[in-house]
Amino acid sequence: MAHRVLHFIADFFVYETAKSVVVKSWSVGIINRVVQLLIILYFIGWVFMHEKGHQLRDTGIESAVMTKVKGLGKFNNHVMDVADYVVPSQGGSSFAVITSMVITANQTQGRCPETEDKFKCTTDDNCMAKLGSNLGNGIITGTCLNTTNGTTGWCEIEGWCPAEDDNVSEKPMKEVENFTIFIKNSIRFPMFNVTRGNFPSSLNQSYIQSCHYDPVDHPFCPVFKVGDILRHINQSLDSITDKGGEIGININWKCNLDYNVMYCNPIYFFTRLDAAFENSVASKGYNFRFAKYHQSEDGTERRMLHKAKAIRFEIIVSGNAGKFSTVPFLINLVAALTSVGLATVFCDIILLNFHKGADEYKAKKFEEVSGVVSESANNRHCEGSQMSIKALEKSSNDSGTFSIGRQEAHSSSNQ
Amino acid sequence: MAHRVLHFIADFFVYETAKSVVVKSWSVGIINRVVQLLIILYFIGWVFMHEKGHQLRDTGIESAVMTKVKGLGKFNNHVMDVADYVVPSQGGSSFAVITSMVITANQTQGRCPETEDKFKCTTDDNCMAKLGSNLGNGIITGTCLNTTNGTTGWCEIEGWCPAEDDNVSEKPMKEVENFTIFIKNSIRFPMFNVTRGNFPSSLNQSYIQSCHYDPVDHPFCPVFKVGDILRHINQSLDSITDKGGEIGININWKCNLDYNVMYCNPIYFFTRLDAAFENSVASKGYNFRFAKYHQSEDGTERRMLHKAKAIRFEIIVSGNAGKFSTVPFLINLVAALTSVGLATVFCDIILLNFHKGADEYKAKKFEEVSGVVSESANNRHCEGSQMSIKALEKSSNDSGTFSIGRQEAHSSSNQ
Amino acid sequence: MAHRVLHFIADFFVYETAKSVVVKSWSVGIINRVVQLLIILYFIGWVFMHEKGHQLRDTGIESAVMTKVKGLGKFNNHVMDVADYVVPSQGGSSFAVITSMVITANQTQGRCPETEDKFKCTTDDNCMAKLGSNLGNGIITGTCLNTTNGTTGWCEIEGWCPAEDDNVSEKPMKEVENFTIFIKNSIRFPMFNVTRGNFPSSLNQSYIQSCHYDPVDHPFCPVFKVGDILRHINQSLDSITDKGGEIGININWKCNLDYNVMYCNPIYFFTRLDAAFENSVASKGYNFRFAKYHQSEDGTERRMLHKAKAIRFEIIVSGNAGKFSTVPFLINLVAALTSVGLATVFCDIILLNFHKGADEYKAKKFEEVSGVVSESANNRHCEGSQMSIKALEKSSNDSGTFSIGRQEAHSSSNQ
Repeated sequence: MAHRVLHFIADFFVYETAKSVVVKSWSVGIINRVVQLLIILYFIGWVFMHEKGHQLRDTGIESAVMTKVKGLGKFNNHVMDVADYVVPSQGGSSFAVITSMVITANQTQGRCPETEDKFKCTTDDNCMAKLGSNLGNGIITGTCLNTTNGTTGWCEIEGWCPAEDDNVSEKPMKEVENFTIFIKNSIRFPMFNVTRGNFPSSLNQSYIQSCHYDPVDHPFCPVFKVGDILRHINQSLDSITDKGGEIGININWKCNLDYNVMYCNPIYFFTRLDAAFENSVASKGYNFRFAKYHQSEDGTERRMLHKAKAIRFEIIVSGNAGKFSTVPFLINLVAALTSVGLATVFCDIILLNFHKGADEYKAKKFEEVSGVVSESANNRHCEGSQMSIKALEKSSNDSGTFSIGRQEAHSSSNQ
Repeated sequence: MAHRVLHFIADFFVYETAKSVVVKSWSVGIINRVVQLLIILYFIGWVFMHEKGHQLRDTGIESAVMTKVKGLGKFNNHVMDVADYVVPSQGGSSFAVITSMVITANQTQGRCPETEDKFKCTTDDNCMAKLGSNLGNGIITGTCLNTTNGTTGWCEIEGWCPAEDDNVSEKPMKEVENFTIFIKNSIRFPMFNVTRGNFPSSLNQSYIQSCHYDPVDHPFCPVFKVGDILRHINQSLDSITDKGGEIGININWKCNLDYNVMYCNPIYFFTRLDAAFENSVASKGYNFRFAKYHQSEDGTERRMLHKAKAIRFEIIVSGNAGKFSTVPFLINLVAALTSVGLATVFCDIILLNFHKGADEYKAKKFEEVSGVVSESANNRHCEGSQMSIKALEKSSNDSGTFSIGRQEAHSSSNQ
Repeated sequence: MAHRVLHFIADFFVYETAKSVVVKSWSVGIINRVVQLLIILYFIGWVFMHEKGHQLRDTGIESAVMTKVKGLGKFNNHVMDVADYVVPSQGGSSFAVITSMVITANQTQGRCPETEDKFKCTTDDNCMAKLGSNLGNGIITGTCLNTTNGTTGWCEIEGWCPAEDDNVSEKPMKEVENFTIFIKNSIRFPMFNVTRGNFPSSLNQSYIQSCHYDPVDHPFCPVFKVGDILRHINQSLDSITDKGGEIGININWKCNLDYNVMYCNPIYFFTRLDAAFENSVASKGYNFRFAKYHQSEDGTERRMLHKAKAIRFEIIVSGNAGKFSTVPFLINLVAALTSVGLATVFCDIILLNFHKGADEYKAKKFEEVSGVVSESANNRHCEGSQMSIKALEKSSNDSGTFSIGRQEAHSSSNQ
């Protein structure tokens, strides 16, 4: 028993290594090294340096955005300040700056004629056909409110009256171009526990109050002028205030945390978010309706309906940080080393097929054992093992030179 | 010196390749090829075709959502339009549609009795025990406002009076079933710089105004009817308006960017977001409180408190785009090629253990050099190198046949 | 033709395996196994057990958050309830709790003096220099409204009058420390189709109404006391109500879905989100302005401007679920197996360079074929193949012992 265990241990600690054939050929040797070099260069240059294959990546950032708009404009002879035109007011990552409004004041619940063209009518039947429509300003009652002489009138609605007539066109608030947006963005890469703010702590109050972001001159200034943003996305103020629009302010954190965390700073870029719908006939622009409610002395509720065209800003934060990590590094390294071995596959093809002396290489590289023969040979084992080996070697058509050498030895032994 | 450099260069360009044993056995050869085939099929079918192992994946999309609800309902004899029932009004990716409200009008700051059952009392002591409670409608003063005959009364509160009594049950706004939600979603895969909108630009205004999304008939229609959504998630209107609820509209972009970007279109699916709490006794539904503030002539502030039950809609956009990239392709390819090599491991086990003629293969595959013997042999190097080699070969118990062949040669030479 | 096909098939099913050299050396054998063991341990311990290299990861969760704040406070002798201090009111994942306000009541459109120090003036010229400024409470008209005796006055503005004077300091609402935030979070891992809620369905109403989250005692309680949160992030109430601030409530789902889904529960942690700007001189805190609009009997619009300092809470949900998947498992397994093979590289270096008998190993491991010689030898093939082989072997300087043994055999055959 102890003997067998010992035997097993001895077997276990036997060291096995591949037997190699060494070819002293300049041509193949150089090809081999060049191919290996190309593979290594590929891995170093592309996989590791460009694609950062040795880094663990974290894209699931935790981000907090605080915004503050500043600016004063005039709309319809009213001075508008932040509390008037920013919706919602809390300064989050998504907010709209209202540039023009259609205001329908003093609405109360009741019945009144529609204002939209599609609800024109001449008889009640026209309106009955539109019962249940969602497109009106109120619930269609089915009555046509005609003008006296049988001319076209409007369907009656039940709801907030008078109905909104949004064919009025007010001049938009042009001053929006000078408005500024202050953005405070702090992010955290949870995988690496790195927290960063979008501007350095060293910036002082007066700089922040006076600077405007510029990718070259003021890359760390967190204050963005709306006019500058429009210029970056090649849009005129008119084109966006005409129907409203959506602008994305992308804050892109691409950080290589193998370097000092100080170099982990955001890049801003701007997009017109509704660009995907630019050529769409339908649904251009951005507008929404809201109401301010009042209560009259007599207790009836009144409201002031606003249909606002606005520029909506969306602060979109994306992060992608990489840091050296053993797992991806090892996977890529092993892939690299294994790939270097592929040079051999390539060179073997050349060596065994297109090189002078290919037969000789074949003979050296491949040592043959023929299963069919050896199976029969196995049976005749006791008879004459030398013969079976000879047969074995004879049957080999690859190992020309080698078998010659051997045969020489054998034949000489027959003397 | 130059000689040594030359030598080094010559050594450097030596080509080394593994020496192979070629076995001409049908059984093992077929097993080998079949195993290799299975491995290759696995990689092609699963890793590359199903799991898209050759693609770089981008899941960190930048998305912008704009929504617009349309519809008219009646609640408590009031006609409700978008400005009344959509909160917040700006048309973002998360909004609530109010289906019923408990309205407490004309609240002013003051003192009044509670309305909730848990603040019933008979003596002041009952109320003193509840000082500091967060669950009431106002700050508990500690006084019990009794009805005259010593019957149970209510604790007094300080705050907005009269206190809200939410035991009133109004009929919810049933028309919500016919409301439509228009969703404009544009996304961008930053890794591949691909921008897509959730409906093609070719759709015209009249189609968008009249169509309702249907996965089969109108897969590109961006207008969703609330009733259809409820049907998709197997919920009745009553079950969701009863206590309010949350519905997720998932927009799922799964794009294979190796094809034309035109095929990159979203799939919509709907979920009841509070499904995880379906069986929970506590905290069913969704409601929130808000107030509309008024100012009386005498300057006192009044408010109208609303406790609203609502359906909250959350547009959840997720994206997953893949595109051919060399890094994941190479890693998987190398893994595939390396794995193909694993067939050899499998076949070697068969060949060396379960195959007829296993000993012969062993002899061919393994060439032995015994460390211990050779170490001593090394010392006696000059004495007789032939003997040491013999000893070396004798000590091998693996290379049976091979050594026999050799011994034959040697012994014959001794004749 | 059929013959060639047969031949090709026969060749195709030939089995090729690397020829190995077996070294019976205790020292190298043990080194080899130890190195292999270390590599295997590394992969098992780090790659598979720690980094879960065999799992497919899903970090692109779909999450829905519903919040509800409870609590009553007093500010400026008014009792404030949820409808007063939570903005926005709908209970989403981001909301602000107002802790103090500067209220400017009864503003109407008109002209009046500024209130901010930077708009002090003595002459109109001072004010003309500030035309177009965005920092005032209204549009600067360019007139300096002096006090009669030539003392310093204030620039005139056009806008909502009277202008806000935010130098008033009201005592913040201290009761915020006792407010509670109820959080309902349900998430879904789309890759694995797993839906989870942040508290088990088995929790009953009364527990949820009375419990406060504690990482040790009440890890499943979804109700968070503001005071507790402040304690977790080492902030005093004063430090955060002084200027306002932002608090992140991170809900972190780290799930190993190879186990029962019941163990997939969130971990909460809290951060002060504006921590990145802690040392910044500028832009501390968090405040925003909003207005409540009224309409006087005479139809003029009045508003009540609020500058609110608030604590903003952001519920940040992050998820990271892993589940066994064949693709990453195989990639890592192949990497592991290939890496085990690297032990051979290490041992070969020892064996061939630092070990007694290195020459002998070299001779066994490397079989040489010299390209240059063999090329010429090839030409003289018919002349004497034995000689060419001899030359071949002679030219080898690696295979010392081996060639000696061979030569012995050859020379003996010459007897």
